[in-house]
Amino acid sequence: MTAVREISRNQAFGGQQLRLQHASETLQCEMTFGVFLPPKTQTSPVPVLYWLSGLTCNDENFAQKAGAQRLASELGIAVVCPDTSPRGTDLPGEHDSWDFGSGAGFYLNATQPHWAGHYNMYDYVSKELPAIVEANLPVTDQRSVSGHSMGGHGALMCALKDPDRYCSVSAFAPICHPSETPWGIKAFSHYLGEDRNSWREWDATQLVGCVDRQLPILIDQGTDDEFLGEELKPGSLEQACICTHHPLEVRMQEGYDHSYFFIASFINDHLRYHARALGLLK
Amino acid sequence: MTAVREISRNQAFGGQQLRLQHASETLQCEMTFGVFLPPKTQTSPVPVLYWLSGLTCNDENFAQKAGAQRLASELGIAVVCPDTSPRGTDLPGEHDSWDFGSGAGFYLNATQPHWAGHYNMYDYVSKELPAIVEANLPVTDQRSVSGHSMGGHGALMCALKDPDRYCSVSAFAPICHPSETPWGIKAFSHYLGEDRNSWREWDATQLVGCVDRQLPILIDQGTDDEFLGEELKPGSLEQACICTHHPLEVRMQEGYDHSYFFIASFINDHLRYHARALGLLK
Repeated sequence: MTAVREISRNQAFGGQQLRLQHASETLQCEMTFGVFLPPKTQTSPVPVLYWLSGLTCNDENFAQKAGAQRLASELGIAVVCPDTSPRGTDLPGEHDSWDFGSGAGFYLNATQPHWAGHYNMYDYVSKELPAIVEANLPVTDQRSVSGHSMGGHGALMCALKDPDRYCSVSAFAPICHPSETPWGIKAFSHYLGEDRNSWREWDATQLVGCVDRQLPILIDQGTDDEFLGEELKPGSLEQACICTHHPLEVRMQEGYDHSYFFIASFINDHLRYHARALGLLK
Repeated sequence: MTAVREISRNQAFGGQQLRLQHASETLQCEMTFGVFLPPKTQTSPVPVLYWLSGLTCNDENFAQKAGAQRLASELGIAVVCPDTSPRGTDLPGEHDSWDFGSGAGFYLNATQPHWAGHYNMYDYVSKELPAIVEANLPVTDQRSVSGHSMGGHGALMCALKDPDRYCSVSAFAPICHPSETPWGIKAFSHYLGEDRNSWREWDATQLVGCVDRQLPILIDQGTDDEFLGEELKPGSLEQACICTHHPLEVRMQEGYDHSYFFIASFINDHLRYHARALGLLK
């Protein structure tokens, strides 16, 4: 069993906000993740919402800024927040840009030799980390997944590539069509190489017709998001979902931007959405 | 009228989270403050809760980490967060310590020549800033005050030195007896000089018997706060309040520490406490 070390523990809303560290086989480095354990874990295991963060974030942003613990505590949901890339690897070029490399793992499995030894964030967040969490913490194997921006893309990858592992999926301002937008093109070129056929399996808009099981998707998107037109393209995913009859609700939120203030404003709706799918709420 | 410039604006919980900048006469420098305006300000002015932050903080910590906007939005309270010291002044020695100088104004008016030109945070937060806020924003002159640690001390200073300006006061883990504890002694020695008689008027435990009007005090204090015994000393204030018949409730919160997770866990109780005093809630 992978050893997990506690870095910090803060009581919050009757539960515990932890930072934990472990050696990752998938990423070949030490990784840190955050977890909120609601008070109910003192008596019985609870389901887990995995939260995948966006570019430049680490395991702490969501725990500090989203204000999710109050309702997660009431509902009895644990919230696990992985980091956004391998850390401490210091590959050449890894720290040169804010939108690529460290802090920008894009929740895929890299195939290019320079990156493939470490940049396997999809396998990490969808397989290795849940196994570690479920072996070490008072949680069940019921999982939901959500995320923001690059992490919204990550949540969609989890739900579309392996829908049987999750009870529900949602996203805030996700990158919906990365193979056609600048951040995605930059990341995919480096991690996956120039053959664009290999990009299809990491693009929600292209994957949505190829799933075994259709998990309904809930998306919140601010109308004043500075990245909406250039990087996020929820309209492309909407079109693809219409064509493939994949259930999707995109809620355009008037006046909201790309910040954590937007996430905090609507996180309770997402927690309740997942709680219903997890059987915690009617 | 003092000109106020907008640095940023984020929609949050149907209202607006702003950062504003202005020239401060009291501090002789440019200052930045944060304000949350609830949706009700679109139709009528609302009362203001002033939040005073602790050592090393600036105007942003509370807005990002406390999760106060959700309930402030519902109740119709604006929340103003000043910075914790003058900025951009670059006095010799000002940036040498995390617990003194920049980020550590201690909400007093300095008397020592080296500091007196700028370090007048008491007059700034209790007089100049409210005047600017009330002249420029859709708020009334009904004020409440709260804060954390050094800012809890600041909130107590506001309520004890000028109780007619505030409807209510509360604090999280305040420094209750700074003239007898290390952070306070260091700050007072520099800002006020070595004559300890001059320290009395900036020490809640010593001031509490000398007030014109007794505003009841609500304090939340974590039992696992790493600074409880050495720096905070709520027991000293409790004793003084008993002797002087000043109404005080100290709620010892089992297992909580000094972090923002503690503040976030109990901020709603404080918002409702102030809302009742401001006539917004029964």
